[in-house]
Amino acid sequence: MACEAASALGLRVAVLAEHPKDAACPVASEVLVGSPFVAADLDALAARCGVVTFDHEQVDLELVGGLADRGTTVRPGAAALELAVDKARMRHVLDQAGVPGPAHVVFESGPAGTLAPGAAHGVEAFAAAHGWPLVLKAARGGYDGKGVWPVEDAAAAEAVLRHVGGRVVAEELVPLQAELAVMVARAPSGASLAWPAVETAQVGGVCREVLVPGRLPPDVVEAASALGQKVAEIAGAVGVMAVELFWSDGQLLVNEVATRPHNSGHWTIEGAVTSQFENHVRAVLDLPLGSTAPQHPQVASVNVFGGPRGEDPAALLARGLAVEGAHVHLYGKFARPGRKLGHVTVCGDDAEGARAAAWAAAIALGTPVPAGIDLARGVAR
Amino acid sequence: MACEAASALGLRVAVLAEHPKDAACPVASEVLVGSPFVAADLDALAARCGVVTFDHEQVDLELVGGLADRGTTVRPGAAALELAVDKARMRHVLDQAGVPGPAHVVFESGPAGTLAPGAAHGVEAFAAAHGWPLVLKAARGGYDGKGVWPVEDAAAAEAVLRHVGGRVVAEELVPLQAELAVMVARAPSGASLAWPAVETAQVGGVCREVLVPGRLPPDVVEAASALGQKVAEIAGAVGVMAVELFWSDGQLLVNEVATRPHNSGHWTIEGAVTSQFENHVRAVLDLPLGSTAPQHPQVASVNVFGGPRGEDPAALLARGLAVEGAHVHLYGKFARPGRKLGHVTVCGDDAEGARAAAWAAAIALGTPVPAGIDLARGVAR
Repeated sequence: MACEAASALGLRVAVLAEHPKDAACPVASEVLVGSPFVAADLDALAARCGVVTFDHEQVDLELVGGLADRGTTVRPGAAALELAVDKARMRHVLDQAGVPGPAHVVFESGPAGTLAPGAAHGVEAFAAAHGWPLVLKAARGGYDGKGVWPVEDAAAAEAVLRHVGGRVVAEELVPLQAELAVMVARAPSGASLAWPAVETAQVGGVCREVLVPGRLPPDVVEAASALGQKVAEIAGAVGVMAVELFWSDGQLLVNEVATRPHNSGHWTIEGAVTSQFENHVRAVLDLPLGSTAPQHPQVASVNVFGGPRGEDPAALLARGLAVEGAHVHLYGKFARPGRKLGHVTVCGDDAEGARAAAWAAAIALGTPVPAGIDLARGVAR
Repeated sequence: MACEAASALGLRVAVLAEHPKDAACPVASEVLVGSPFVAADLDALAARCGVVTFDHEQVDLELVGGLADRGTTVRPGAAALELAVDKARMRHVLDQAGVPGPAHVVFESGPAGTLAPGAAHGVEAFAAAHGWPLVLKAARGGYDGKGVWPVEDAAAAEAVLRHVGGRVVAEELVPLQAELAVMVARAPSGASLAWPAVETAQVGGVCREVLVPGRLPPDVVEAASALGQKVAEIAGAVGVMAVELFWSDGQLLVNEVATRPHNSGHWTIEGAVTSQFENHVRAVLDLPLGSTAPQHPQVASVNVFGGPRGEDPAALLARGLAVEGAHVHLYGKFARPGRKLGHVTVCGDDAEGARAAAWAAAIALGTPVPAGIDLARGVAR
C-alpha cells in the first residue's frame, strides 16, 4: 500500500523482500531478495535508495544503526524503532516521560526452555499487587497477538516463562471501556499531525475491525490524538507511528506502539484527505505532510482473513465487490486459514450501515466472524 | 494509475511497454518490452494474461482482432476500439445511431505530401455550407490536439490536406458554451454507470483543467451522462469510455471518444467513490462495477506540464505538496517543456477555492498558465 501511494507521487520504491512472492513485490519499482538480518542485503538496498524505511519491525537494531552510521538516511532511526522492537524499552521510555500505561514489571526469563531463578517468584509478587489474570509479553519479536500470553495463575505464568527466552514484561490486565489507536505522522522537523483516534476490536490480540470514530466520545478522541502526538515526540519518530491505547476507568493507557503504517490506519486510504501510506512516504522524504482530516462522518474498516478451509478472498473478489460502497484491498498473499489477507473499508454518514457493509463484504470474501465480534451491537457514540 | 488500482485489489498487471522507462513500468507486476504493432509481442502479452486491455488507442485493429480470434479475451474489443482509433468511423457509427455531432464530411486526402483530386474542392464546398474557419482532423493517429488543425481559409486547408495522408474529417467549428466530458464504465453484460459530466478547459486541443461540475447546470450534466451511456452502448464498449462533448447553442454534440481511462476522469481517484481506473479494471475482468457517485460538492483537477525550461515537477514535489488539500499525481515521465507529466486534484465545498488550490499546486510544480486559462473567472454554476 505504501508502494501504491509512492507511485501516485511519481516516486520509485525498492523493496528488500525475503521472498520474490512477498506482497509488496508486484507493485515495487525494484525488488531485492534478501533479509533485513543480513548486513550485505541492507547495504545493497541502501545503495539503491535515497531513504530507507520500514513496513515492519522485525529488524536488527544494530544493523539498522550501522546503516545510518555509514551515511544512509534511515527513517525512523534506530532509537525510535527500538520502542517498537522492544516492549521493555518502550515501557521504560514512556514511564520516564510520565506517559500512563498499565502497571508492569520486566523480568529476565532465561534462555528459551529454562526458567531464570526468581522469575516465577517475581511474577507472583507482581500478581499479589495487581491480581490475576495478568499478561506476559516477550520483550521482542511479537506481533499480531504472537508473543503475548494472558495467564490465569502462577502455574500458567511459569509455563510461559519457561517457554519464552529473554526478557519478559508482565502487565496488569486493565478493565477496558474500549481499545483505541492513534496514527501520527511526524516530519524530520518534529512537526506532527494526528488522524482522529479510532476504536479497534481485537480478538486474540489480532485486529478485526476499526471504527472511526466508533463509540468514542469527542473528548476521548481528542485526548488520544494529543497523547499519540506526545508519544511520537518522545519516540523521536519520523514517518507514521501507531499508538495503541486502552481506555480504562476513564483513563488512556498506552498499550503498544509501532513506528510504521499500521492496520489501525488502513481506513485513512479512503477515509482521510491523506492516507497513512502517503504521509509515511512524505514524512520519510521530508516532504510537507498532508491533511489528516477525515472525509466522512463514519468509517468502518474490517480485516479479511482466510477462511477455515483456506478460502482465498481473491477467488471471491466478485462477491466482495458486489457490496455497495465496499473498498476492497487484497494484499496478494497466499491464503491460509486465519491469515490476514486484506481489508475492506466503507465510508458514510451512518455508523451502523458502514460497519454492516464492511462486514458483509469481508464475509463475502470468506472471512469468518470470530467469537467476540457482535455484528448486532451499536456502533455510534 | 490503473496498476495502482489493480494492486489495491490484489490483481497483477503485465504491461507491454515500448521502453522499460515507460511510466507504467515501475508499478507493473511484470513488464514486457515490445510494441503493440508487433504480433509476437501481443502474443507474448496475451500468454501472460487472463484479459488484455488498453491505456491508449495507438493500436493496430487487425492485430487486436487477431488476438481475440485466437482466443484471448480482449476488452474493449476491436469494434469498440475502432471508434476511438478512427474518427471517420466514429462519425459514421454515431450518425447512423442518431447521436448529434458537428456537421462533418470525410475526404480522402491522398498519400502524405500529395493532394488527392477533389479534396480541396470538397473542403471548399463544405465551407460554403458551414463557413470558415473549420476543423480538419486526420481520421487516425491523433491525440492531445495532434492530428487536429483549425483552418481559416481554403489556402490553409489545402496545406493541411497536402501535409496529411489518408482520410480526413472536416468538421464545422461550433460556437461553444462549454466543453464537457463524460466517463462511463460498462460491463460485459452491457450494464453501465456514468460519473457526473465534467467541464473541461482545452488549450490547443490539450486538456488543462477539469471542473466537477464547473459551470454546468444540473440538467446538462444529466443529459450529458445519459448521452455518454448511449454512446458507450452504441460502441459496445467494455471498460471505461470517455465521451467528449461540445455544449453548443443549448445542444450537446459528440466531439471525441476514447475507450479507456481518460484525462477527464482523473478527478475520480479522490473525487468519486470508485475511480475510473478501478472501474476499468473491474469491468474488463467482469467484476461488479463500483459506485460512480461523487464524494464532494466540488472537484477541480489541473494538469501538470513541464515548464518552458524543462522544469521537472518531480524536483518541485515539496512545493506542490505544500498546497493544502492538493492530491498530487506525477507519472514519472521524463520532463520536457510542454509535456503532460501529472495532475493535481483538490476536492471541497467551494468551486473557486478548489480550482485556485489545484492551480496553485500545478504552478508550484512548474506548470505554466497558458493563454486561454483565466484564473480569475468564476467556476460555479
